[in-house]
Amino acid sequence: MSDRGDGAGTDTAEHGQFRQLPPLRTDLTPIVEAIDAADADAFVAVGDRFDDDLRYLTRFCGPDRPYALVIVPDDGTAGRAICCAPSLFREQAEREFVAGTRDRSEGDDDGEFHDGEFHDGVAREVRTDRVGDHAGERAAAVVRGLLGSETDDSSETDDNTLLVPPSIPHDAAVYLERDGNALASTDAVATARARKTAAELDRLRRVQRAAVAGMARAEAVLAESEVGTDETESPALRWEGAPLTAERLRRAVNATLAARGVRDAGNTAIGAGPSATDRHCVGDNPVRPGETVLIDVSPRGPDGYYGDLTRTFVVDGDGGWERRAYLAVESARDVALDEIEPGVPAKAVHGEAAAELAAYGFDPNAGEGEAGFTHDTGHGVGVSRHESPSLSSGTELRPGHVVAIGPGVYDPDVGGVRLEDLVVVSEDGYEILAEYPFGIVPSERE
Amino acid sequence: MSDRGDGAGTDTAEHGQFRQLPPLRTDLTPIVEAIDAADADAFVAVGDRFDDDLRYLTRFCGPDRPYALVIVPDDGTAGRAICCAPSLFREQAEREFVAGTRDRSEGDDDGEFHDGEFHDGVAREVRTDRVGDHAGERAAAVVRGLLGSETDDSSETDDNTLLVPPSIPHDAAVYLERDGNALASTDAVATARARKTAAELDRLRRVQRAAVAGMARAEAVLAESEVGTDETESPALRWEGAPLTAERLRRAVNATLAARGVRDAGNTAIGAGPSATDRHCVGDNPVRPGETVLIDVSPRGPDGYYGDLTRTFVVDGDGGWERRAYLAVESARDVALDEIEPGVPAKAVHGEAAAELAAYGFDPNAGEGEAGFTHDTGHGVGVSRHESPSLSSGTELRPGHVVAIGPGVYDPDVGGVRLEDLVVVSEDGYEILAEYPFGIVPSERE
Repeated sequence: MSDRGDGAGTDTAEHGQFRQLPPLRTDLTPIVEAIDAADADAFVAVGDRFDDDLRYLTRFCGPDRPYALVIVPDDGTAGRAICCAPSLFREQAEREFVAGTRDRSEGDDDGEFHDGEFHDGVAREVRTDRVGDHAGERAAAVVRGLLGSETDDSSETDDNTLLVPPSIPHDAAVYLERDGNALASTDAVATARARKTAAELDRLRRVQRAAVAGMARAEAVLAESEVGTDETESPALRWEGAPLTAERLRRAVNATLAARGVRDAGNTAIGAGPSATDRHCVGDNPVRPGETVLIDVSPRGPDGYYGDLTRTFVVDGDGGWERRAYLAVESARDVALDEIEPGVPAKAVHGEAAAELAAYGFDPNAGEGEAGFTHDTGHGVGVSRHESPSLSSGTELRPGHVVAIGPGVYDPDVGGVRLEDLVVVSEDGYEILAEYPFGIVPSERE
Repeated sequence: MSDRGDGAGTDTAEHGQFRQLPPLRTDLTPIVEAIDAADADAFVAVGDRFDDDLRYLTRFCGPDRPYALVIVPDDGTAGRAICCAPSLFREQAEREFVAGTRDRSEGDDDGEFHDGEFHDGVAREVRTDRVGDHAGERAAAVVRGLLGSETDDSSETDDNTLLVPPSIPHDAAVYLERDGNALASTDAVATARARKTAAELDRLRRVQRAAVAGMARAEAVLAESEVGTDETESPALRWEGAPLTAERLRRAVNATLAARGVRDAGNTAIGAGPSATDRHCVGDNPVRPGETVLIDVSPRGPDGYYGDLTRTFVVDGDGGWERRAYLAVESARDVALDEIEPGVPAKAVHGEAAAELAAYGFDPNAGEGEAGFTHDTGHGVGVSRHESPSLSSGTELRPGHVVAIGPGVYDPDVGGVRLEDLVVVSEDGYEILAEYPFGIVPSERE
């Protein structure tokens, strides 16, 4: 029996493309260095599985209630990292956070690293002992056990200083402060996240290839659609015997993403005509001939990394506004990409795109709901869909930065055109993580 | 052309099942009452789109960076609620948070509520003015504008008291405190969330029906599979010409969920044999004859509500451990359901299930990695996958509580059996939100 006959889950070419990879591990050295640089005593993060900083640091796809990570410098090793997890998650936390990592102080028979091992010298462990109900209490107990605390002796005020992410839950912060710790926020995690390792780039390429497959599905549906009429006799596209709507198109894309082993993550935004100006459109309006159909796909892979890909099509267009917009946006994309290389301020990339759109007669500073370019040219992408570097910031681009480049122009009365690709900054320019062709008229590419 | 020929997005029966519903609106009265009861001045929440409290309160599927909600009692209305959103999200916030709600003080021509209108008397508005970079600063400015603040006059100490969810981001809490507010945490949101309205139950039923479709797909794949061998000549299931793995089965389920318009949310856990004892299994191991195949589907609908459904199958079983386990778990499920009615302590439901499993010879208090019943019988489900009431708590069940009931037994050397359904507590018992048949031998049910 053929493996190709069913869209649901049978794509052997991509089968296991994520699951059979060695597990990702994060180098915790920058966090240990940040503790030392701040003259602090430890780093503490508290959050649930939706906390992307914790996901990055631990690679633990944890529970949907808070857990904690404590990192301390250590004389015997390059540092110690303790993940305080619910006991039901011990096996998963061991597998995802600890397995395959080793302390540099452990002797190697041959002095070499072994397959699947990861050495940053930070000794990792999982603790599931229940010290209080809240992850903040458990983190406080771990800090007290490792560093000691002067709260027992009211004559002393030698508190520990803990680095924490700025958005640590307030109740966790209060538990840590009550236990005799002073908190200081750090951006060390955001900084570390911005530059991707080769293993992270591999994950980003894979999820972006799944985004390409989803886009090809959308384009094929549009190519297969025919011009007909809806129940009010207005022109409308029909596909497989029924009116084509944004929702039907979205489901086709999302089923393709699922079959590739990635999640749509609620991010498949499809606008048609005026609704294309709403960048977060998840409506169910009909798709009509001559309208811009804007398709933004941003799936999330099993390791948490996002893709981001946008294309715009018109079925049976008349070559009016949308042609001019498409040319302008494609040109803006090109000049933005040309600007990308290490050392360039991120906002210069946006500046180039905006200037190009202005040259085509589009307002480069349009406000929400106005006609023109209403948003930034792009943003960093990683375990968050939006992360550093922002293309409105003065941050200098550096090798390993991954950014979505997606200029667009909109007219609230007509529609919108956006073209967005995911690129990594290389030593001398950039690399597109997965190519997708251009063209306003949809073709069969599946 | 038939509408049934393609698994991806063409299911007209379910087409638009979510998108064409009137928007959900949340009655904010309990929050206003909590402010009054605590003698506080306002309620403030800060979070991003992954913050389920904010999702519930605002119905705004917001940005992935923090935004804020401020609620204050008001003499002219039942209260005022201000959503501080990024300007790019104004249209979406207006549509999702404000549209269709009306102030009770507005005159009705006929004194009646109109279709699509929602009246809790709380006047809602969206503000996108940029006051500082952080949502906490914007919330502080809104509080200052509405309530005034004595921080300008250092001789006064008449601070405002703000109720906040316990896990409000610490940086937001610090902005609010610096602006002269005292914070007090409240569980009013969690309490309000626990009891579902008719509109919420409608959403929960719809997403659970999608979970049923996903489960039927998994069962059909198992029913279609044939006993063969893998590359090491060990017995293994084959489906559509290739070895069946947990990952292939997961992708088939997830593509079906996507085609129904819901997200798998990364929650489709499929274990086979010993891996079925890991309740969070997302591996890619082969599925073998005679093994328990445990399939836990917990998709999320477009309005944020989760389903939760678990079944266990065995292909070509020999009627050993898994038969006994299945009978025990089915019986434990039945006695747990029999216990459900208003006024019963939630943990009594767990107690009944545990006692029944013990009567079948399974350890009702097994620890992680041991043989027996290793977890709670269930948990509340709503805009979070796990929410109030917990079935290990003393909370009395009340009408409108929605709980997943899912006893299970595991043997780390053999496998695991769990059966889980989503039920709502009714006035005199319970209702299963979407039925799915039982049976350890997989059948075609699609």
